[in-house]
Amino acid sequence: MSKPLILVSNDDGITSKGIRVLVSVMKKIGDVVVVAPDSPQSGMGHAITIGETLRLYEEDIFEDVLAFKSSGTPADCVKLAKHYVLKDRTPDLVVSGINHGSNTSISVLYSGTMSAAIEGALEGLPSIGFSLCDYSSKADFSHLEEWVEKIALQVLERGIAKGVALNVNFPPKRNESIKGIKICRQADAKWQEEFAERYDPTGRKYFWMAGNFVNFDKGEDNDEWAIANNYISIVPCQYDLTAHHAITQINKDWDWDKLK
Amino acid sequence: MSKPLILVSNDDGITSKGIRVLVSVMKKIGDVVVVAPDSPQSGMGHAITIGETLRLYEEDIFEDVLAFKSSGTPADCVKLAKHYVLKDRTPDLVVSGINHGSNTSISVLYSGTMSAAIEGALEGLPSIGFSLCDYSSKADFSHLEEWVEKIALQVLERGIAKGVALNVNFPPKRNESIKGIKICRQADAKWQEEFAERYDPTGRKYFWMAGNFVNFDKGEDNDEWAIANNYISIVPCQYDLTAHHAITQINKDWDWDKLK
Repeated sequence: MSKPLILVSNDDGITSKGIRVLVSVMKKIGDVVVVAPDSPQSGMGHAITIGETLRLYEEDIFEDVLAFKSSGTPADCVKLAKHYVLKDRTPDLVVSGINHGSNTSISVLYSGTMSAAIEGALEGLPSIGFSLCDYSSKADFSHLEEWVEKIALQVLERGIAKGVALNVNFPPKRNESIKGIKICRQADAKWQEEFAERYDPTGRKYFWMAGNFVNFDKGEDNDEWAIANNYISIVPCQYDLTAHHAITQINKDWDWDKLK
Repeated sequence: MSKPLILVSNDDGITSKGIRVLVSVMKKIGDVVVVAPDSPQSGMGHAITIGETLRLYEEDIFEDVLAFKSSGTPADCVKLAKHYVLKDRTPDLVVSGINHGSNTSISVLYSGTMSAAIEGALEGLPSIGFSLCDYSSKADFSHLEEWVEKIALQVLERGIAKGVALNVNFPPKRNESIKGIKICRQADAKWQEEFAERYDPTGRKYFWMAGNFVNFDKGEDNDEWAIANNYISIVPCQYDLTAHHAITQINKDWDWDKLK
């Protein structure tokens, strides 16, 4: 059997530590092609490049791996990979990350890492976003490698439901080793923003956005609980945003005489 | 009863035609505050500004309306409005748009218009994104005004379920008038990308992303069908991306002996 073709992208940029770890693990499993942003793209959400040009350059950065850096967003990178770089070859797996920082709970909405994975799912490809819940500049990725490999192999073997991408978050390295995997729902939480005001040398005001993460969720079946309890969280994410329950409710509750 | 407080944002920028129409309608209903991007932000998805500064300037652009332009994304604008501009005042309604172009189906993922509305929903506020399915530079917004007003009034009266924002798309102006409103699900469709290659004056390659919209959906309960048949589509969208059906399936299907 030929080796699986694995497309790797991320949002921290092609020189980041997380993508190096991800590429090294994927090389054990299959033929790897990388298309990743040429600079960090954190917080890009599902942005794409419209009305501006895109660059794409081959970059000899990973040993024995065909790799390209692009000026585009993570979602752009997956589109470029699928429809330009690979064209007639279909990846067996799309992996994104390993993000340096958490993408649990509501952070999935703002996550460039997950937008690359969701873009893969949109193309009908089994797709996984990996993130490490550790913001330290010296974050240790070594405890993840065996788990990244196991999860990727399992997805290659069993596939993922249509319209779904996996959001995998790893707990930070702790004294106790990782307890295992929990398949979770997205926790009910939000970022509570605060804006720090500053003045530039010309006296004009500017702002830094900062925020505190607020977790409203008391359950034990969500990703925040899993990470806090030293489990790997896997949330299956869908790109059909329809709130089906709300369709019935609106049809029933609204005053349709006023809406003619 | 005091007038409702209405926050207006968009992704086409504060000088666009669509936001002028939206502000003029909202002024009939309530007290309006605008915080919108200082330049077009189409395709920004749910991007936010991390690690870079934000500007926010008051702009006397709409008669008798407090308005600010920001260097940030649509999601940034709603965060700035809620946590800085309005601070102790809570909007009764957040409206975004009217986007110049469709945000039906999968386009919701890439939509800056909808990211502003979803950000509003995240803040627990009734939130609506409005878009006109007409890309023509001379797009006529006049047939929308009565409908925008009716929908906004209905939402102020009846509210929206927690965790849900409304994605409202209007058909383009046609000879036949709009038939009414359909509460829909997001159509199963995608953009099929093509990349046009060009060379700059120094001989280096660059790309333009282009794409064809491909609709796989044969149903009549989705937003694409509604627009094609001259109805206004309203898709209730949720920010909990969890594919709940897939949780059960993964727990059952995966080979857990290999994942210890």
